[in-house]
Amino acid sequence: MHAVPDGQPNLYGIIREALSRAGKGLRPALCLATCGAYGGNIENALNSAAALEMLHNAFLIHDDVEDLSETRHGSPAVHVEHGLPLAVNTGDAMQALSMRLLRENVRTLGPETAWKIFDEFDHLLLRSLEGQAMELGWIRNNEMLLDTGDYIRMVLLKTGWYSFIHPCRIGAIVAGRGDRDLTPFNEFGLLLGLAFQIHDDVLNLIGTGAYGKELSGDLYEGKRTLMLLHLLENSDAFEKQRMTGILSKARQYRLPSEISWLYGLMRERGSIDFAQSASREFLAAARQFFDSAYRDCPENEHKTFLRQLMDYIVDRDR
Amino acid sequence: MHAVPDGQPNLYGIIREALSRAGKGLRPALCLATCGAYGGNIENALNSAAALEMLHNAFLIHDDVEDLSETRHGSPAVHVEHGLPLAVNTGDAMQALSMRLLRENVRTLGPETAWKIFDEFDHLLLRSLEGQAMELGWIRNNEMLLDTGDYIRMVLLKTGWYSFIHPCRIGAIVAGRGDRDLTPFNEFGLLLGLAFQIHDDVLNLIGTGAYGKELSGDLYEGKRTLMLLHLLENSDAFEKQRMTGILSKARQYRLPSEISWLYGLMRERGSIDFAQSASREFLAAARQFFDSAYRDCPENEHKTFLRQLMDYIVDRDR
Repeated sequence: MHAVPDGQPNLYGIIREALSRAGKGLRPALCLATCGAYGGNIENALNSAAALEMLHNAFLIHDDVEDLSETRHGSPAVHVEHGLPLAVNTGDAMQALSMRLLRENVRTLGPETAWKIFDEFDHLLLRSLEGQAMELGWIRNNEMLLDTGDYIRMVLLKTGWYSFIHPCRIGAIVAGRGDRDLTPFNEFGLLLGLAFQIHDDVLNLIGTGAYGKELSGDLYEGKRTLMLLHLLENSDAFEKQRMTGILSKARQYRLPSEISWLYGLMRERGSIDFAQSASREFLAAARQFFDSAYRDCPENEHKTFLRQLMDYIVDRDR
Repeated sequence: MHAVPDGQPNLYGIIREALSRAGKGLRPALCLATCGAYGGNIENALNSAAALEMLHNAFLIHDDVEDLSETRHGSPAVHVEHGLPLAVNTGDAMQALSMRLLRENVRTLGPETAWKIFDEFDHLLLRSLEGQAMELGWIRNNEMLLDTGDYIRMVLLKTGWYSFIHPCRIGAIVAGRGDRDLTPFNEFGLLLGLAFQIHDDVLNLIGTGAYGKELSGDLYEGKRTLMLLHLLENSDAFEKQRMTGILSKARQYRLPSEISWLYGLMRERGSIDFAQSASREFLAAARQFFDSAYRDCPENEHKTFLRQLMDYIVDRDR
């Protein structure tokens, strides 16, 4: 893995360990397949795909610190294994290494395309961190006056741009499409991202052992998921008051019995069914936008792979 | 401040607040003055200088999280004011915004020089994070077998590159010196950085109210300062054992009486005097290297300012 330097075990050793854990590789897959679908040379997209995966893992390490999550990909989170100070520092370095990978694009793609991809990264970085600030602010202020529109806006910022929209756009840019209108990827990526994120939130509640995070972790963290917002809209004044009380406490003071009550109420009011069907509907819409976003691509193995990847997104159990 | 976007108060609001606190502006000053000393147009160095200051503030926010420091520039640290999750997220965004400022260099300096400065940033970023990992590892493992050579190596990595060496190098590059040998700045910056860091560590012990951090914070944090290493070399077996015991405890379990004992012993063994005279010696050496690093600069107001800045570094009380 030449993207990670040798030396300093408390930095590069931790990065190697974090990268060796089984992730889905979703973002590089979207980037490389989109490049291939447009007839581009996939090798030319490798630096950008690696930068996306590096940055994603930086986000995961910092997310786990910020949410105090204890497991990731079935192993202890980096801050649990190495302590919070080294976890924060390691995430910083991975963000820096992702920029170093983009620097390589000058050599392989020339300066103009390299800067274009740099700008895509600039956008996805800040949008993701804005989305994270939005979600952390909701939890911090125990925000209860939220609706599904707020949820969609948050997912677009926090996950949509960096995990779906920009990986596709960058793949197309590497394939020489940088001068065309790239906005069709924005709608496609947002819808696919919503399908993915809602499915992910559902897995956090009802997942099997294959799901590598602690179950109901989102409830303990007070995450404003689509299920929670649905439940808020479908509960009476007494229930709302109890929910507000539970969510206003610091994570470590939330009792298992309170989490069970929340979970049971979600089941009873159909919040989980609602989220599952929302995820399926967003996927169906994403499929339609896929056909228009990729309409000038020939039918090839990459386009077939992208279709399979869409199925995987709501069928996976981890 | 157009370097900070509008919107998202839980992100950009916090960044504005952090940047508005009185910092010394040392890194931008070194960068701009070096550019001016070499006859460059200072305006051309503004983006790079702002990027240095932005990144420095990102480091401060994450450092305070990692060290659990409570005050910064006389105010509560960002993680004390806004909580740890938003503090981590804000630092990430400031690292991203510093890269965005470098992107501006393409427009003002052309792509070749812009990439050269990008490479300087790539180097200073990773070196700083390696130095931080080294220091955090020492604290984490309660490392006691360290000597002054380890300290110098750590300061070079953690502070030397980003605060001294690269600000000067970048100033020279903006002034059109990018093709010359820039290594004389490395020696000069390392020596000035050592003078600065040791003086900073001394201020942490014996500073006045003007110093914006909690006094003796480094002792509570178990920082391996030059004074601590000097004391280790000048204590008997019983004292060494007691020091190891105190330093092995988590920060919150270190008692004020233990910190007083450490401080008193440092006074008694001359560790603070030793550090103060080391700082002065490094400064004297830096002055000699200044003359050679800047020897082909004419005597102008910028060169005069740089000389004053060297004096300030060991005379300041904050």
